[in-house]
Amino acid sequence: MFDLYIANKNYSSWSLRPWVLLKALEIPFNEHLMPFEGGLGESYATFTRFSPSGLVPCLVDSKGDAGSEVAVWDSLAIVEYLAELYPEVWPQERMARAWARCASAEMHSGFSVLRDECSMNCGVRVALNTLSDGLKNNLARLDALWQEGLERFGGPFLAGKQFTAVDAFYAPVAFRVQTFNLPLSEASLGYVQHLLEEPAMEEWYQAALAETWREPMHEQDALKNATLLNDYRAV
Amino acid sequence: MFDLYIANKNYSSWSLRPWVLLKALEIPFNEHLMPFEGGLGESYATFTRFSPSGLVPCLVDSKGDAGSEVAVWDSLAIVEYLAELYPEVWPQERMARAWARCASAEMHSGFSVLRDECSMNCGVRVALNTLSDGLKNNLARLDALWQEGLERFGGPFLAGKQFTAVDAFYAPVAFRVQTFNLPLSEASLGYVQHLLEEPAMEEWYQAALAETWREPMHEQDALKNATLLNDYRAV
Repeated sequence: MFDLYIANKNYSSWSLRPWVLLKALEIPFNEHLMPFEGGLGESYATFTRFSPSGLVPCLVDSKGDAGSEVAVWDSLAIVEYLAELYPEVWPQERMARAWARCASAEMHSGFSVLRDECSMNCGVRVALNTLSDGLKNNLARLDALWQEGLERFGGPFLAGKQFTAVDAFYAPVAFRVQTFNLPLSEASLGYVQHLLEEPAMEEWYQAALAETWREPMHEQDALKNATLLNDYRAV
Repeated sequence: MFDLYIANKNYSSWSLRPWVLLKALEIPFNEHLMPFEGGLGESYATFTRFSPSGLVPCLVDSKGDAGSEVAVWDSLAIVEYLAELYPEVWPQERMARAWARCASAEMHSGFSVLRDECSMNCGVRVALNTLSDGLKNNLARLDALWQEGLERFGGPFLAGKQFTAVDAFYAPVAFRVQTFNLPLSEASLGYVQHLLEEPAMEEWYQAALAETWREPMHEQDALKNATLLNDYRAV
C-alpha cells in the first residue's frame, strides 16, 4: 500500500503533482497531510521523520523492499517509481513519452521566475502589480511548450487523450494561472480550464479552500508583487 | 545515432551529466560543443536552433521517431530516454533504482545554494571567503545522501559496483568539491576522488583545461565569494 505525505493543499505545489496523478489514475493510497508549521526550519524537522530530504511530497511503499517499506522522496522519482508498476503513468507511445518526460523535467528544474513570483495559493485571486521580463520569458516558453504538446498529440491533455504525469507536473501551474490571471494564448487557457475541471483537481481545490491554516511566509509570497482581489477560503 | 549538444566543458555542469554517462557506458554518440558566446540571451538564441528550451544538454536521436529525428532536451529526460534502450543506465535492482532516481531528482531540482555559490569551473582552484549557512546545509545533506548510498549499496559508486546515472548526476559536484575544496566526510571525499579518477571524467577534465574560451559571467560566478589560488587552464 502507498502512503503519500503532502503539505497544505492550498500552498504545496510539489505535493499536488503525485497526489493528482494517483487520483486521476485511480491508484489507491493513504493521504498524510502535514501542514507547514512555524518557519521552514520547523517544517523541515517534522518532515525528516518520514522524508530523507526533509521535503514533501514523499511516497512510502509499505511493501517496497521484500516486505519492508521504502521511501521515494521526490515528485519526479515518485512518477518513475509508479510508472514501473502502472505503465499508464506515461503516454504509451515512445515519442510521446519522451516528450512528456522532457516537459516534466523542464518544469522540475526550471520555470524558476514563475514559481518564485507566482507562488501557489489556490484560494485567492490577485492582480500582479507588474509583469517582470523574467516572468514574461517563462510564460512565453510555457505557452510554446503547451501549444506544441496540444498540437502534436491532439489534446485535450498535454500528451494526448489521457491524463498522464506531464499533466500532473503542470497541474500547479493551472492554479497559478487562475490565482494570478496570467496572460496566455487561447489554446493554453483552454488547457488550464480543462485541467481545473478534472475531478481530481476539483477535489484538491475544495480541500484547499476548506483549510483554515494560514502560513505567513506563503501568504506573503503570493502578495509580494500583487494586490489581493478575492479570498475564497474558509475563515 | 545520437547527437549530444553540450556547452563549454569547463563550465557546463548540466552538459557533463549525459556526456559522462554515455562515455562511461560506452554508448556511441557524436559530440557537438556549442561554446557560450555573448550574454545568456545570445547563447539562448543559438541553442534554440537545436534545443526547444534553449538550454543544453540536448540529445538528438536521428532514428528516434520512425526514422525522423527526436530532440530530448533535459538531462534527466535524456537519462530516462537512454534507460529504455540501455537498462544499465540505472541500477538493475528495483530498490537501488528507486533510490538512485530519488537522489538524481533531488540534484536536478535542488542543492540550489551549492549550485549558485560554487559554480562549476573545472580548471581553477579557489578558497571560499565564507561558508554560508545555506551552503553548510546543502553540504550536510549531500554528505548524508552520499554516505547512505555508499553504505547501503556497498560502493564504490553511489548505487553499488557500477557507474550509473546517479553518479552522472553528481559528477559536476565532484569538480565543484575539487575547485572549492569543500569540506565533506572522509567517505564522501573518497567517492569524489573515485569519480575524478574515472577515465570519462579525466577525459572531460583534460578537454576543459584545453579550452581557451573565457566567458565573463561564468568566470565572475566562481569568484564572487572566493579568492583565486590556481588556474590550470591553457592560456
